Amino acid sequence: MQQPLSGVRVIDLTRILSGPFCTMLLGDMGADVIKIESGRDGDPIRKAGARVNELSWYFASFNRNKRSMALELRSARGKEILARMLQTADVLVENYRPGVLAEMGFDDERLGQLNPRLVVASITGYGTSGPYADRPAFDFVIQAMSGFMSTNGPEGTPPIRSAPPITDLVAGLYAAYGVVNALRTRDRTGQGQRVDSSMMGGMVSMFAYLTSDYLATGALPQRTGNDHPITAPYGLFSTSDGEIAVAPSTDEILLRFLTLIGLAHLMDDPRFKTNALRMFHRKELNAMIDEQLSSDTQANWIRRLNDGGVPCGKVQDIGEVMRDPQMLHQEMVLDIEHPGHGQVKMVGFPVKLSGSPCAVRHPAPEYGQHTAEIMRELGLAEDGKPLSSAA
Amino acid sequence: MQQPLSGVRVIDLTRILSGPFCTMLLGDMGADVIKIESGRDGDPIRKAGARVNELSWYFASFNRNKRSMALELRSARGKEILARMLQTADVLVENYRPGVLAEMGFDDERLGQLNPRLVVASITGYGTSGPYADRPAFDFVIQAMSGFMSTNGPEGTPPIRSAPPITDLVAGLYAAYGVVNALRTRDRTGQGQRVDSSMMGGMVSMFAYLTSDYLATGALPQRTGNDHPITAPYGLFSTSDGEIAVAPSTDEILLRFLTLIGLAHLMDDPRFKTNALRMFHRKELNAMIDEQLSSDTQANWIRRLNDGGVPCGKVQDIGEVMRDPQMLHQEMVLDIEHPGHGQVKMVGFPVKLSGSPCAVRHPAPEYGQHTAEIMRELGLAEDGKPLSSAA
Repeated sequence: MQQPLSGVRVIDLTRILSGPFCTMLLGDMGADVIKIESGRDGDPIRKAGARVNELSWYFASFNRNKRSMALELRSARGKEILARMLQTADVLVENYRPGVLAEMGFDDERLGQLNPRLVVASITGYGTSGPYADRPAFDFVIQAMSGFMSTNGPEGTPPIRSAPPITDLVAGLYAAYGVVNALRTRDRTGQGQRVDSSMMGGMVSMFAYLTSDYLATGALPQRTGNDHPITAPYGLFSTSDGEIAVAPSTDEILLRFLTLIGLAHLMDDPRFKTNALRMFHRKELNAMIDEQLSSDTQANWIRRLNDGGVPCGKVQDIGEVMRDPQMLHQEMVLDIEHPGHGQVKMVGFPVKLSGSPCAVRHPAPEYGQHTAEIMRELGLAEDGKPLSSAA
Repeated sequence: MQQPLSGVRVIDLTRILSGPFCTMLLGDMGADVIKIESGRDGDPIRKAGARVNELSWYFASFNRNKRSMALELRSARGKEILARMLQTADVLVENYRPGVLAEMGFDDERLGQLNPRLVVASITGYGTSGPYADRPAFDFVIQAMSGFMSTNGPEGTPPIRSAPPITDLVAGLYAAYGVVNALRTRDRTGQGQRVDSSMMGGMVSMFAYLTSDYLATGALPQRTGNDHPITAPYGLFSTSDGEIAVAPSTDEILLRFLTLIGLAHLMDDPRFKTNALRMFHRKELNAMIDEQLSSDTQANWIRRLNDGGVPCGKVQDIGEVMRDPQMLHQEMVLDIEHPGHGQVKMVGFPVKLSGSPCAVRHPAPEYGQHTAEIMRELGLAEDGKPLSSAA
């Protein structure tokens, strides 16, 4: 089957999370991703997270559709082999600190000489130039520096991170988007180019009205926890056996909500006629809503409100999500055979193409599993003899 | 200048945030995005958020590089014009609830007949099929349903949302990634296809080890606030004049950190020798770190630690981020002339291409600003007469 990136060869010098997520996204779309690993253990994520049958499921989840090649890039021979690989590759992805790849002998000039068609993607904390370019980066620090943390948390409490390392994943996704765009340019012009994705820049692009309102007014958003800063009612409300999340985003949806719970008359109540008044009387309003909702169960309210056109759900934990009928219908939990390690469950494909869909063509590789195979493809001796004697 | 998506025409039926973010990303890469708007006011975001000189900066930020066409899609004439537009378009993006586009007369079969090369992207809350497909969606509800909220917040406190509507933005970015991949397939095969991106599926793909560890062990992640669930030290620490965010992710970086703050001997202390011990004695360890950090300022520690290879930053508010020298160097704050509304500041491009970069070719349009121009391009009378008399 032809996938969007079938025939695209990606040399993957990344490790940990942001870079491997990017190359996984490319691999899911059909690219041949060659993961270069070195040292005693390869990518440190092989030893991170929970392991089953001697396999890290964290590693397995983010390295599907890749082949692994063991190659010491600090050695002259390793560099020679990498150079040979880059000559026939389409994409190079790296998440070193800025300058490290150049120090290894692969600056932009050399890369352009080796292969002018090469797309070179860098994923960094802060970008490849500028006053912070040399700083090491880590998700928690970028959540802090980007402003994301400052907006999160209940009123009157300190800023709070999100537990998922969201800045890594956003940067990896933007890098993948940039790479496919650069490939499209190259398909027409024959010229590769640089793609730079930064964790901080990516995260800053995700704030919607929080940044635009700040830029327009100079007023900082206040932390409001699960209450919306400028809309009421909004948040978690109590039913007879659990909370529901309700967010009527327009007056039309609010009227539907209040009608369904028997409070339609509040739209004419002088205390609640406008959003500003509802914000002011929020406590009173929320209490009235909670009282109405106590007449039925969480499951029933979720069904009744959604049927009536009011967005409604509940706070699910990760276990509920992984068993959620919608997630299963959407094949968001995959069960993949990993030879020697049994079946591995992992999250599925977040974007679905009907004609040339994402697929797991092969599971995450053992460290160095494909070294000999890739050496053969390069026309090198399987025993890894130096290029000069193999050529 | 040729951009990656120059020559690609996108018919944009989206409104609010997830869809407009997707089409903005496509427009930033050079696509000709025609935003179809209807009703008295067009996209409701035109009236949302802070306004300056009668322009919503929220709207302006997410609708750059688009042209606006006023078209009533409920009328027969509107549908006829849309059909004509789709015949020569490359991409259709919509974020209606599943089924609404088909009800309007544009089901997959009809779209395929009109233009077999068309890429049709749908952005939905839960996906276009499955038990929740018909539910209306909203960011807060998806933050709850996806499991994201359940992981966020301090220990012993309720789950907490993130203030930015992250599920909308992630879904929009995945949709854009899917569209460019589908275009690449079409460039080779001549065939368009469907691209489905859901807010819940997209968010679920962003949990990294939180999902893989759960799937491997069945154990739910606990909320731990700004502490890392499985690493210590990690978090916010106090200097003489403010907190710093520090996250030593490996033993190597931890040793650098402790050395730089004069606590290297702790690596040999029986209380702190292993990560497990450090987790157990976290309070004691954090207190010792705070005491050492009190000897210097926040700014000095940020410089000293980063120089020494330890990821370190501070919690910046949105204002600090918008003035941050790195963000300014990276051109992450743009200042764009909007005729009639003055200069508008907005967030810049999160992914940078060196050869065919993103650009603001034109600012966000007035409602219907390009209707006549687009009608002319379609070969229709400027006065908007029905197709039959114009053709």
